[in-house]
Amino acid sequence: MSAYLDHAATTPMLPAAVDAFVESARRVGNASSLHTAGRAARKVIEESRERIAGALGARPSEVVFTSGGTESDNLAVKGTWAARRDEDPARVRVVTSGIEHHAVLDPVEYLVERRGATVTWLEPDRCGHTAVEDLRAALEEADDVAVVSVMWANNEVGTVQPVAELAAVAREHGVPFHTDAIQALSHLDVRFEESGADLMSVTAHKVGGPVGVGALLARRDARLVPQLHGGGQERQVRSGTLDVAGVHAFAVALEQTVATRDVEAKRVLTLRDRLVEGALALDLGITVSGCWRAGDGVGRLPGNAHLLVPGCEGDSLLYLLDAAGVECSTGSACQAGVPQPSHVLLAMGYGEKEARGALRLTLGHTSTDADVDAVLAALPGVVERARRAGGIA
Amino acid sequence: MSAYLDHAATTPMLPAAVDAFVESARRVGNASSLHTAGRAARKVIEESRERIAGALGARPSEVVFTSGGTESDNLAVKGTWAARRDEDPARVRVVTSGIEHHAVLDPVEYLVERRGATVTWLEPDRCGHTAVEDLRAALEEADDVAVVSVMWANNEVGTVQPVAELAAVAREHGVPFHTDAIQALSHLDVRFEESGADLMSVTAHKVGGPVGVGALLARRDARLVPQLHGGGQERQVRSGTLDVAGVHAFAVALEQTVATRDVEAKRVLTLRDRLVEGALALDLGITVSGCWRAGDGVGRLPGNAHLLVPGCEGDSLLYLLDAAGVECSTGSACQAGVPQPSHVLLAMGYGEKEARGALRLTLGHTSTDADVDAVLAALPGVVERARRAGGIA
Repeated sequence: MSAYLDHAATTPMLPAAVDAFVESARRVGNASSLHTAGRAARKVIEESRERIAGALGARPSEVVFTSGGTESDNLAVKGTWAARRDEDPARVRVVTSGIEHHAVLDPVEYLVERRGATVTWLEPDRCGHTAVEDLRAALEEADDVAVVSVMWANNEVGTVQPVAELAAVAREHGVPFHTDAIQALSHLDVRFEESGADLMSVTAHKVGGPVGVGALLARRDARLVPQLHGGGQERQVRSGTLDVAGVHAFAVALEQTVATRDVEAKRVLTLRDRLVEGALALDLGITVSGCWRAGDGVGRLPGNAHLLVPGCEGDSLLYLLDAAGVECSTGSACQAGVPQPSHVLLAMGYGEKEARGALRLTLGHTSTDADVDAVLAALPGVVERARRAGGIA
Repeated sequence: MSAYLDHAATTPMLPAAVDAFVESARRVGNASSLHTAGRAARKVIEESRERIAGALGARPSEVVFTSGGTESDNLAVKGTWAARRDEDPARVRVVTSGIEHHAVLDPVEYLVERRGATVTWLEPDRCGHTAVEDLRAALEEADDVAVVSVMWANNEVGTVQPVAELAAVAREHGVPFHTDAIQALSHLDVRFEESGADLMSVTAHKVGGPVGVGALLARRDARLVPQLHGGGQERQVRSGTLDVAGVHAFAVALEQTVATRDVEAKRVLTLRDRLVEGALALDLGITVSGCWRAGDGVGRLPGNAHLLVPGCEGDSLLYLLDAAGVECSTGSACQAGVPQPSHVLLAMGYGEKEARGALRLTLGHTSTDADVDAVLAALPGVVERARRAGGIA
């Protein structure tokens, strides 16, 4: 049995979610069909929508089902940008942080390259925090802002952003605020309405649901130009046959995650702290990226341990740890294999050299003390070999 | 037990596909991760890609996984249009038929309304056929064509288009040809390379796989501007975490469908013919839309029976049949509940009045003689009541 410490990339499906998937998958019915089977499928969708909304402190009518986080982020950023520009052609600016996931950054880049958008980048501090004052200054300086997008918690270093304060500033300025809450969902008390955000991306496979289903929460007054055109499902905002089994499994997984979240967050925090303090105590020169404080599961995701190992290539560490039975990553799974230092660490002010020895260990619902033991036992030999194999000059 | 005669909307998942889903869903691993679990997930993806390519007469590298048919159609139409216009800003024209699915029509409409596209509509004949000469004339008349899109088989009336000939004409003119093969897949011998198409949309849930996963087949030289931006999965053309379990189930379902397709097509053709001839013989004034010939599973999908019942509202028929244990539709599931006559029937030359009494009965892998018996037994009473309830003046 390997120690799986890559829950930020994807977390095992909860057995109850697999069961829910199978239960619905064994019944036929397109939720748009009007006959009995179709109406039964629609009932599963609408009940799941209510459960998901309930778990996220949102209204059912605010839940727009999508194929996952990437589509939710794309719809939020590009859809809002286009709708706002429709209202006023001068509004072409996106305000976002330099440490967003590529599912936000790349839509922004697309808008700049192809649609005439401009960007104000909010630069994070060394901890990866976006300052509320920076957003305020950006919105006071520019009157052409179409949308603001700042993630709830970073997928690499786990830094939690002051979402409610950021959203409040955006609202003062009458600008729609989107937050990618995908990484926050499993361990933080994410509530849509309370957050003040206009739009929020969530996905199932980070909370024990299936890959391929997610949602964009959108306030009823949020204006969105659709990005997938067709049958007009989901308030005419998102087309495509509704994934009844996937949505059902998403609802079950999310409800279970939220029901056990407080306890679970404390549990993984204890494990995480032991992992980080154990790694620091190994006397290998390992440091923690961003700002580290034991017991901090509020400013930093409780399941996130992000280490910098000087003199090593992250990929070497990853492969050597894998051989030793520890599965983790160097950063975002989506960027795995890309031979570039993390844009998140660079934005936080790290040099390329420092950033190359990054190791992301993320804990979740299957994580145990034995997993932590495995990491701490493996690290000394792994670091030594990684340094010998390809030390960084 | 109801008689489910709405396989064109969605068909029950094959038990082997459910098993494949569960098998993969019980293992963790993001296919982009580099550790053992990630590589195992990647192996499932690549093996499934090979199986899907094999089943469709394509190369594995031509398979771009998507969230389903709507996304595949959107990517094909909008992605090709944008790439072609990049090469030559004058190329803004889409050539397509008036009977496409909304997942093609609505992207076209979006391009016209928001991106400056123009359209040449290929008008079908009374059978729903698109003439090869019409495409040739359109391409000879206009030198600004970015993309041609004509579906393989229509989702409402089942008419099969001369895809290979259409694709050949497009190729002569150097214009990329896309075909939505979603309805064709279950009963026709769909082979990508042989078809000569540059792009082909397919989806899993019409062949016994799960909803929420599909693919766009794209020749290696097809140029596509991505529509979902992010992690860069799928040749940088389509971003989003790969749905390992869904893709696995898709491969299993498609392989099983293709392996039994010839036999199955003959089996449903026999049932379909009995259904149609039985309905015509009921002396209720029922006609078949388009061109009807018993035994024709080539010009018309073998599982498609599309009836016109004069003096009735399709929705009344649908609900009364449902109450009698027969589940079917009036047209596309995506347009269910939309109180407008089918754009397909109107394009084929039917009047609004005729088009309102449309009834689509589509057969698939679970269909039996008992289902046909149920329809034929129910129709007389249902038609009588529908006529009494709300006769059309």
